[in-house]
Amino acid sequence: MTIEAMTPSISTDEFKSAFRNHPAGVAVLTAVVGDEHVAMTVSSLFSISAQPPLMGFSVSDLASSARVFNQADSVIIHMVDADSLWLAKLGATSGVTRFEDRRQWKVLPTGERYFTAAPTVVRATVVDRVRAGESTLCVAHAVELVKSDAAADQAEHAPVVYHNRTWHRLGDSSAVAD
Amino acid sequence: MTIEAMTPSISTDEFKSAFRNHPAGVAVLTAVVGDEHVAMTVSSLFSISAQPPLMGFSVSDLASSARVFNQADSVIIHMVDADSLWLAKLGATSGVTRFEDRRQWKVLPTGERYFTAAPTVVRATVVDRVRAGESTLCVAHAVELVKSDAAADQAEHAPVVYHNRTWHRLGDSSAVAD
Repeated sequence: MTIEAMTPSISTDEFKSAFRNHPAGVAVLTAVVGDEHVAMTVSSLFSISAQPPLMGFSVSDLASSARVFNQADSVIIHMVDADSLWLAKLGATSGVTRFEDRRQWKVLPTGERYFTAAPTVVRATVVDRVRAGESTLCVAHAVELVKSDAAADQAEHAPVVYHNRTWHRLGDSSAVAD
Repeated sequence: MTIEAMTPSISTDEFKSAFRNHPAGVAVLTAVVGDEHVAMTVSSLFSISAQPPLMGFSVSDLASSARVFNQADSVIIHMVDADSLWLAKLGATSGVTRFEDRRQWKVLPTGERYFTAAPTVVRATVVDRVRAGESTLCVAHAVELVKSDAAADQAEHAPVVYHNRTWHRLGDSSAVAD
């Protein structure tokens, strides 16, 4: 899909400003191709359908890990919470070694690495890729729920949201009464 | 893209439970085909790229307005805030007439209806559609920023998030200190 150069568009600034009114959940994705392991934080993860269980996310060509994500057969999706916010920050900081601390991650029988601190970890196979501008839209099929250490602790997990360059924590105080 | 019936999957319940740890921003979409105007609330809107300005969202086949959204050339995207939360509820309630109150919406020169209460309203043309399970993934190119009544009031707009069947409002109290 190509956008004609002459098509009128809103400006980049207007677009970014519009999305400042649109918060997003946060997920950290990991993948491996050969022996190259990558991790990145995305605010584009969304549920497509529950039956079959499909998710989507987009990978910008500008991401340092784009080449691996665009070739990997599978991806590990970590939904972060307030306690594992450090993981989202780790995956969002450029130039940082993601897997430096060997205590933070384990290896699945299928070869991918996952971070044990995330309360929800899903293994998904990539079933479709679509080019959109300078990004690739991925459709992934959830095939396995990984039992992370955080999932096993049975605690309440306060979800986090990214909005206007700030992280927010959801809880009773943010809930809107009906 | 077809998912083989024999491919192992996580269950629908597991999938829904996983996304309970993944909050989402809320948008209301409107579209028109012929003289059939539709509106629906989605939690799947995400930014794909700022240059060119592209967004994505998914439309379930189960949505009553799916036929129109899957044929429309353009879509009007409303980012809702705490003050226009009624609009998100309107678009999420089945069997309700969306355009009953004539004071709530206006008509664009291009023919689509938009709700004036949303602080951010973007007109986008659909540039790609991809089937994924029982849904259609749409890629839309932002072509015009619509000046809504709410946008003109220059007030602070508290964004809302949908999480685990509850609406949340973001503000200073939900922000996580760095």
